[in-house]
Amino acid sequence: MRLSRYFLPILKETPKEAEIVSHRLMLRAGLIRQQAAGIYSWLPLGLKVLDNIGRIVREEQNRAGAVEVLMPTLQSADLWRESGRYDDYGAEMLRIKDRHERDLLYGPTNEEMITEIFRSYVRSYKDLPLNLYHVQWKFRDERRPRFGVMRGREFLMKDAYSFDVDQDRAREAYYRMFVAYLRTYARLGLTAIPMRADSGPIGGDMSHEFIILASTGESQVFCHKDVLDLPIPAESTDFRGNLKPIVDQWTTLYAATEEKHDEAAFAAIPEDKRVSARGIEVGHIFYFGTKYSEPMNAKVAGPDGVEKPVHMGSYGVGVSRLVGAIIEASHDDAGIVWPESVAPFRVGLINMKAGDGVVDAACEKLYATLEAAGVSVLYDDTDARAGAKFATMDLIGLPWQLIVGPKSLAEGKVEIKNRATGAREVLPIETALARFGAAA
Amino acid sequence: MRLSRYFLPILKETPKEAEIVSHRLMLRAGLIRQQAAGIYSWLPLGLKVLDNIGRIVREEQNRAGAVEVLMPTLQSADLWRESGRYDDYGAEMLRIKDRHERDLLYGPTNEEMITEIFRSYVRSYKDLPLNLYHVQWKFRDERRPRFGVMRGREFLMKDAYSFDVDQDRAREAYYRMFVAYLRTYARLGLTAIPMRADSGPIGGDMSHEFIILASTGESQVFCHKDVLDLPIPAESTDFRGNLKPIVDQWTTLYAATEEKHDEAAFAAIPEDKRVSARGIEVGHIFYFGTKYSEPMNAKVAGPDGVEKPVHMGSYGVGVSRLVGAIIEASHDDAGIVWPESVAPFRVGLINMKAGDGVVDAACEKLYATLEAAGVSVLYDDTDARAGAKFATMDLIGLPWQLIVGPKSLAEGKVEIKNRATGAREVLPIETALARFGAAA
Repeated sequence: MRLSRYFLPILKETPKEAEIVSHRLMLRAGLIRQQAAGIYSWLPLGLKVLDNIGRIVREEQNRAGAVEVLMPTLQSADLWRESGRYDDYGAEMLRIKDRHERDLLYGPTNEEMITEIFRSYVRSYKDLPLNLYHVQWKFRDERRPRFGVMRGREFLMKDAYSFDVDQDRAREAYYRMFVAYLRTYARLGLTAIPMRADSGPIGGDMSHEFIILASTGESQVFCHKDVLDLPIPAESTDFRGNLKPIVDQWTTLYAATEEKHDEAAFAAIPEDKRVSARGIEVGHIFYFGTKYSEPMNAKVAGPDGVEKPVHMGSYGVGVSRLVGAIIEASHDDAGIVWPESVAPFRVGLINMKAGDGVVDAACEKLYATLEAAGVSVLYDDTDARAGAKFATMDLIGLPWQLIVGPKSLAEGKVEIKNRATGAREVLPIETALARFGAAA
Repeated sequence: MRLSRYFLPILKETPKEAEIVSHRLMLRAGLIRQQAAGIYSWLPLGLKVLDNIGRIVREEQNRAGAVEVLMPTLQSADLWRESGRYDDYGAEMLRIKDRHERDLLYGPTNEEMITEIFRSYVRSYKDLPLNLYHVQWKFRDERRPRFGVMRGREFLMKDAYSFDVDQDRAREAYYRMFVAYLRTYARLGLTAIPMRADSGPIGGDMSHEFIILASTGESQVFCHKDVLDLPIPAESTDFRGNLKPIVDQWTTLYAATEEKHDEAAFAAIPEDKRVSARGIEVGHIFYFGTKYSEPMNAKVAGPDGVEKPVHMGSYGVGVSRLVGAIIEASHDDAGIVWPESVAPFRVGLINMKAGDGVVDAACEKLYATLEAAGVSVLYDDTDARAGAKFATMDLIGLPWQLIVGPKSLAEGKVEIKNRATGAREVLPIETALARFGAAA
């Protein structure tokens, strides 16, 4: 993409209303624009990151055997009256009346609707296991929305719902999502730690929050240092096999949020292995048994022909929140530092002397060659000053900068800068291209 | 995808509430489920088609130089008070109050919001032309939603908005979208005809509806027969070049909806060239000048430094509506007939004797080989009867069926059926694979 034909509205000043770094950087780098309290437009660069995160989340859901659907944003209130939550949910639910005075609501979550879909079609244990997920905008009317997309009102969530014939099978479904989440966050460039969470009225051990460590995190978390180095399950993991060993490995060492923190257990860890840090919640998985299937009459017949309420779990990833969370975990004074997997473009190509025939021609050729090799490039072909171009590229955080100026070009060379490390190298053009898998 | 692990809820009975064939087939083939009047969930097969359409629409928008953003579903009422439309819009606008009694609305369209974004960042003619689009769910509170996704309340639309310094430049922007639309519908397997539409208060010739022909269409349309055979602009079309010749070619021959029909002009066409048919609107492009930029104060400075309201156009494609429209245009008594470009899977692999070791092994190998070659396959590995499997495959309309039974397999052969033509061939396995670009 040529910057001259793109829409990248960089702000020179730091917006006063932004309290946290990710919010400031998202506004300054032209990723989002606020349209109302807690409601944002995603500008081109921000949307690319959002889409990249969504793609990785979907790939790992699919790998784990979940099947994608898409439920609407608006729901009938009657559905929520069946579960009893219409009255219980409180002021965070956005209640709406349509032109015929029928009660609708903007879905804050989808347990009721997915249960309705399930009970409409599925009758037998033979159709299980089943895990249906969607990636859809939700609305929660926070009293005080803030922190940008980290606590917005309209937000994008991936929510999956598993259906199983009994608790043992539900545990297997839970493990599949547990492992999928480990892979998802690792691919997003995050160190995410599953931490035992409140499991609500059902109790048991099947509720985990996934927390990423970031110095600016919203809450205090505690864990054994070795958790940070546990191996991420491989792409080849057999999701139809026994996943218990992986889950056990990840749940044996101490890891807890403030709410579930056990001072005594933490003190029992060798002192040099005690990690106390700030964390951000980026996912929550949860087994809730027959909480919805019972009141909503979602039953399946077992092998014995007897109908029983189906056992369910839900599995959420805050997709839009992750854009902010990744920035909280990966930035410096100059701006955002995107992990390669979610970066809006892989390479920022900087023309140091736009208008100079030789530099322009070299840039055009590099641009075309990289694009042809499938490398996404943002080509700054504008006539801005070199200093401003550098500052913009640092701010928007593309993993690589490819800098083309008359001096090095005279020697057939260009400069490469790694955004994360700051390392710079002056290389022959063909070597630089080869770094990105492109041939000159 | 193995059918045994998928979620494909086929209905045996034809739903009574569905008045038109696409609605009936979408319900029967398990593409959608109604959640409230005019509000649908997209089940796995339907979502795949919706995503495929969205992908093609985006590719052609990008090719034409439009840049993707994503605006939220909810909007502030204040924005619509600026343009004067908050009171004018009528009962189709879903008005909402949040917990602080602030007026929101569920966006039925986005002229106001995109104008707000534009005026917040763009100041100079140097930043133009600019065309920003998004693909987002909209809500229009139809008094009587019906015809399934063809006239739903919550619907997915691609809407693009162009910004130019004057009407001449705006005409070029309009041409780019005109050509992009011709390419989009052709890639979706549709014959779409641009027809002069009502241009509202501004007048002029820059308003076209794109109409596809379908015997079950909602309205009567009239055109010169030769319009149906005009060449579709090539992928290599230079969108920064002069597109007027293409637009002229497509707008010279007679083509009009009932509303704009001119009996005399139609009668002047040679009788054997007169086409009168049913049509479905699938897109609308529109130049509206300074209708929003003026009241909302969206101005750019020209080369002379004088600030003037920016000239705008909007360009809509009904993405969810297209799923229904394509079915209206492409079905038979047995079910849907998907064009390859939007089909949820390219091949339906039918195991005629699940449980038979030889047939199972052959199917597994075909499945793995095709998937490895990038061919999307729905593998019916269930133990349903062969007749039921055939009926399901015909109903869901995948372009190709690959039928594997013990008899032909004994000779090293399988059967291929083309869903559109019904043509069947018994071929050696390697020949069949080669048909899909896969090597045995």
